[in-house]
Amino acid sequence: MEQKTSIGLLGYGVVGKGFFELLADKEAFNIHRIAVKHPGLHSDIPAGLLAASGYDIISDPEVDVIIEAIDDAEEAFELLKFALKAGKPFITANKKMIATHLPEIIALQSAYGVPVLYEAACCAGIPVIRTAEDYYTDLVNGITGIINGSTNYILTAMGRYRYRFSHALQLAQEAGFAERDASLDIEGKDAACKLSILITHLWGIYIAPDEILYTGIQNILPQDLRLAEHTGGSIKLVAHACKTNEDRFVSYILPKLVFRENILYSVTHEFNGLVLSDTYGDEHLLYGKGSGARPTAMGLWNDLQAFLRGYKYRYKKQVKPEQFNNDYLLTVHVSIPIGLKLPKDLDLVAYSDDSRYVYYTGTLSLRQLSENDWWKHKG
Amino acid sequence: MEQKTSIGLLGYGVVGKGFFELLADKEAFNIHRIAVKHPGLHSDIPAGLLAASGYDIISDPEVDVIIEAIDDAEEAFELLKFALKAGKPFITANKKMIATHLPEIIALQSAYGVPVLYEAACCAGIPVIRTAEDYYTDLVNGITGIINGSTNYILTAMGRYRYRFSHALQLAQEAGFAERDASLDIEGKDAACKLSILITHLWGIYIAPDEILYTGIQNILPQDLRLAEHTGGSIKLVAHACKTNEDRFVSYILPKLVFRENILYSVTHEFNGLVLSDTYGDEHLLYGKGSGARPTAMGLWNDLQAFLRGYKYRYKKQVKPEQFNNDYLLTVHVSIPIGLKLPKDLDLVAYSDDSRYVYYTGTLSLRQLSENDWWKHKG
Repeated sequence: MEQKTSIGLLGYGVVGKGFFELLADKEAFNIHRIAVKHPGLHSDIPAGLLAASGYDIISDPEVDVIIEAIDDAEEAFELLKFALKAGKPFITANKKMIATHLPEIIALQSAYGVPVLYEAACCAGIPVIRTAEDYYTDLVNGITGIINGSTNYILTAMGRYRYRFSHALQLAQEAGFAERDASLDIEGKDAACKLSILITHLWGIYIAPDEILYTGIQNILPQDLRLAEHTGGSIKLVAHACKTNEDRFVSYILPKLVFRENILYSVTHEFNGLVLSDTYGDEHLLYGKGSGARPTAMGLWNDLQAFLRGYKYRYKKQVKPEQFNNDYLLTVHVSIPIGLKLPKDLDLVAYSDDSRYVYYTGTLSLRQLSENDWWKHKG
Repeated sequence: MEQKTSIGLLGYGVVGKGFFELLADKEAFNIHRIAVKHPGLHSDIPAGLLAASGYDIISDPEVDVIIEAIDDAEEAFELLKFALKAGKPFITANKKMIATHLPEIIALQSAYGVPVLYEAACCAGIPVIRTAEDYYTDLVNGITGIINGSTNYILTAMGRYRYRFSHALQLAQEAGFAERDASLDIEGKDAACKLSILITHLWGIYIAPDEILYTGIQNILPQDLRLAEHTGGSIKLVAHACKTNEDRFVSYILPKLVFRENILYSVTHEFNGLVLSDTYGDEHLLYGKGSGARPTAMGLWNDLQAFLRGYKYRYKKQVKPEQFNNDYLLTVHVSIPIGLKLPKDLDLVAYSDDSRYVYYTGTLSLRQLSENDWWKHKG
């Protein structure tokens, strides 16, 4: 291609700026215009590039491709629809937007014949969606991963360096690992969005993020991390989805005790790791930086290259979403403030306590965990 | 696709049989015929499937795709040429054939417009070629990996379980990790073939396997492994290629001391791991089983799926092969039998000895290592 590819960039936060910088020495590409929410805050944008709005950029006949890196999922979705109608390919890192609207986004791509690519929405630059989509076809039974960089960074900082939660969170935000609204990361919703996207590409079913059982690290206390250490493991926010025997599906995001023998144990700091388990019982790991300006910019760049080669997602046949297996059993460790009562009829036994908490262990089904949330709150 | 894809299978050794078994429950595919060198040895091939020769299978109008899994690289190349002329896509696990003839294979694909795919030739089912080809475009500065499963298995067995070399090799062969001609693995040639292929896909240059400085694990002694352990590391057969500052290239396969902090330290047994280092200094790891019947069969299966989606390799612009940087310096540890003299003018100092060997350390350039092979032989 002799002519430069002309790019319209929506958003100039951590990721947008990272992408702009990545493109600086790529001669075949040109950032045509940039739209930001608060132009007054962006004296760092080169003169002449600032656009009045994302819609203006999309409508600009000189723009070939849209790169979207804004925070607001609903606004991003409106821009996506506008872009597809205008025939402009749309490359995004917006996991919440994609996961929330995926069935509609699939239909829109098909209706307008224009691709949407979003590798950067899952684990930044690590090609996990690509691999789920194109590779190991019909041979993956389950995935287990650490797919949120900021919670992993926080847990590493709390466990290894004894930082307080608030300090670790602040560091993660300063380094650009955590979203502006950190609750999405901390409470597990960000990981649920990514898992939802991966499940669609792996098995052709759509499970909305809110249908996935998820909780984050908001209730992890320093003593939990120390306890984990004493057992020779550490606590990680683990995303898991698998086919169970009956061709039903299980999916959750939960803080789990990960032992040294587990390959995910060495996934620390802002790194992500996704293990794909194949039908032979073998494991395949994809590992790298899962958040931050440059890794995410790299994900966008990879999609831009893929688009230029004619790549698009092919979504497999959809199966019924009610094929959940909520009878799936998990071994759990729960701590409850002293004085608080457990719901009845749970297969849990107290095994330890301290001045404030009683520690229980036992077996619960996903249904028992989904039906109420006594275990999510520590008061 | 309603009609079954009809496959001609060449070879029914560890890999061919593994592929046949993988296809057993895949309804959209059909193994039409199988060619083997010694039909008398294959009573396990279902009646009616045996073909007189690979050429017969390729000529069979009912065969859509050729899957090649034979040992002999030259015979495989003849079959490949015959298949492309006949318009039959050719999927292979034959790293020696691909690496040795890659420039010609690129030209043939272009001349006949028929694809050759060979993901299984590098690290079995791990999508390393795919990633080098399609992903991180223009952003990878270097790769470092453990890309030979059998030597890694042998080193693990020798270091961890104190097995003798011969016993460890035998186990590797029994498990199907080692080629029939084990010297290819042991002496590093197998890894050099894989590295050569990866370099072409990453940077668009061709370096023939024999142009790569390589040595294997044939001279690693139990005391070397113990010494490594005392330093907190272990010896691994490491493949490395990188761009140096001046846009020149370095490539080698050498046994290296890998410390615990290195992500490749935990790549043990028959596992492979490939680290891609990006221009930002970040590392990306692809990890999984790099040899054996099922992982390799999975690589062939992935290529079959890719072919059906219209995938083909796009080779980037070739640069001059003389862009080697042989001034590149390595810190080396060498042991020389007592009484043997070192070549003159080498920057090496003796730091230890035992009853049979003197141990040296120091800095040598790739040129000094390439120019003669005193360091390869322990007498």
